[in-house]
Amino acid sequence: MILVNGEVVDQIPVNDRGFQYGDGLFETIEIFEGRPVFLEHHLQRLRTGCSSLKIPFFSDKQLTDDIHRVSHQAKHAVLKIIVTRGIGGRGYRQPKVLQATRVVSLHPFPDYPFNFPNQGINTRFCTTRLGLNPSIAGIKHLNRLEQVMARSEWDDLEIQEGIMLDITDNVIEGTMANLMYVKNDTVYTDKLQFAGVKGVMREVLKNLIADHHLTLVEHSYRKEALLAAEEVFVCNSIIGIWPIKKIDDVNFSVGKITSQLQKWLTQLKEKAHLND
Amino acid sequence: MILVNGEVVDQIPVNDRGFQYGDGLFETIEIFEGRPVFLEHHLQRLRTGCSSLKIPFFSDKQLTDDIHRVSHQAKHAVLKIIVTRGIGGRGYRQPKVLQATRVVSLHPFPDYPFNFPNQGINTRFCTTRLGLNPSIAGIKHLNRLEQVMARSEWDDLEIQEGIMLDITDNVIEGTMANLMYVKNDTVYTDKLQFAGVKGVMREVLKNLIADHHLTLVEHSYRKEALLAAEEVFVCNSIIGIWPIKKIDDVNFSVGKITSQLQKWLTQLKEKAHLND
Repeated sequence: MILVNGEVVDQIPVNDRGFQYGDGLFETIEIFEGRPVFLEHHLQRLRTGCSSLKIPFFSDKQLTDDIHRVSHQAKHAVLKIIVTRGIGGRGYRQPKVLQATRVVSLHPFPDYPFNFPNQGINTRFCTTRLGLNPSIAGIKHLNRLEQVMARSEWDDLEIQEGIMLDITDNVIEGTMANLMYVKNDTVYTDKLQFAGVKGVMREVLKNLIADHHLTLVEHSYRKEALLAAEEVFVCNSIIGIWPIKKIDDVNFSVGKITSQLQKWLTQLKEKAHLND
Repeated sequence: MILVNGEVVDQIPVNDRGFQYGDGLFETIEIFEGRPVFLEHHLQRLRTGCSSLKIPFFSDKQLTDDIHRVSHQAKHAVLKIIVTRGIGGRGYRQPKVLQATRVVSLHPFPDYPFNFPNQGINTRFCTTRLGLNPSIAGIKHLNRLEQVMARSEWDDLEIQEGIMLDITDNVIEGTMANLMYVKNDTVYTDKLQFAGVKGVMREVLKNLIADHHLTLVEHSYRKEALLAAEEVFVCNSIIGIWPIKKIDDVNFSVGKITSQLQKWLTQLKEKAHLND
């Protein structure tokens, strides 16, 4: 089911600014037993994104009504929200009165093999680089050509994710997930000030790491630091945490901090589900 | 009139990758007395863009049929073409078989004041910066959030264009037009290797400048060089050439090379129209 501004339709006007310019934002949310997981985190990021791009946010109630309507009968699914600056304007110039477009759609949960969270995944370095753009870095906006180009680099079903560097050789993230590594009991990840998307799962893990008195360092780092790590994993709202067992030809073991984070994450999700 | 894949409709599917990721390209073409101006240049850029983004190009005939159908009765209008990677795929990953979407639409020619080409326009420096991304720089793709954000900076009807710098303080272009300046009988413009769009009018002017034995230098330059120029102008396929008479508080005169280029451009368009 797809709702566009609350109506059951599967089309949007050609002159929507989302289609014309990628002028909007999106969220991808896990639905478990009819409930959106980490909903408040996703809504908060959407509000922040709208504020950064100066897109007027409609009422939470309209959006949560749409979300409930689309997902309340789903056992396990993916919900996608797209918000755009709406219709019209002359060229890049926006119209005087903005009416944001909201699209809420439900999709089957991907049939990822059950052993990815335990045994880890194979990855590769992408040749497509992320550009540097501090003014929109971190935001989950609709300008995603870089990720599309990076994902088109491989077709091998044995490789689950590609790791992207920026144009100055810093390691940033995966094509669809944030990237973290562990060295000497400390977790490291990029700050995402110049490129990348600040994932909801990244935020959830930051909080879990702080709650359990582990250390997270956000810094710029190179390929060499990543390849010398003791544990490496990717995370997003749909996959949770997947350990990386291979980057190109370099092997990694599934480490104890990665497993520990997975356990804490499962506990947090169970607790939130019971209290929901 | 809007044609989507040759059908008269004004909607596209929500799951089109143009809407989901800005995964596509566009062209904006002047229509004069029913004929698309510099059509071959636009088609060539579209082909090159499709090749860069690995979007399969449909037949020229389909596209030119659409263009003719939409524009052959228009006296003076703007034609917009959008080409996307089409529908589907899982996340950023594209489907095995690609079927590009093509959208051809006609719009009224903007009612720009008649004195802009003679007396020039007022401009300002934008605070929004262009990011650096050599892998997609130059391409007229659908990831246009930077231009949207820059254009939203001002509402003053007296200001016709904003000039954008990149994040390293190089001057790149306008929000909707390429930028050139003249100093000591030489024309200068940015190379557009790291940011910006390689405009069709920019290409046309490059050829005119070469044909008339003037010198064009493509190089990186700063605000100071621009402000010390003798003549400054912007160009695109719709406006042609507009001299700049003011950047923030700095005044410029309409110069002789700018006027000469305008004359050559008019002659070229007249000749092409007669031979068409």
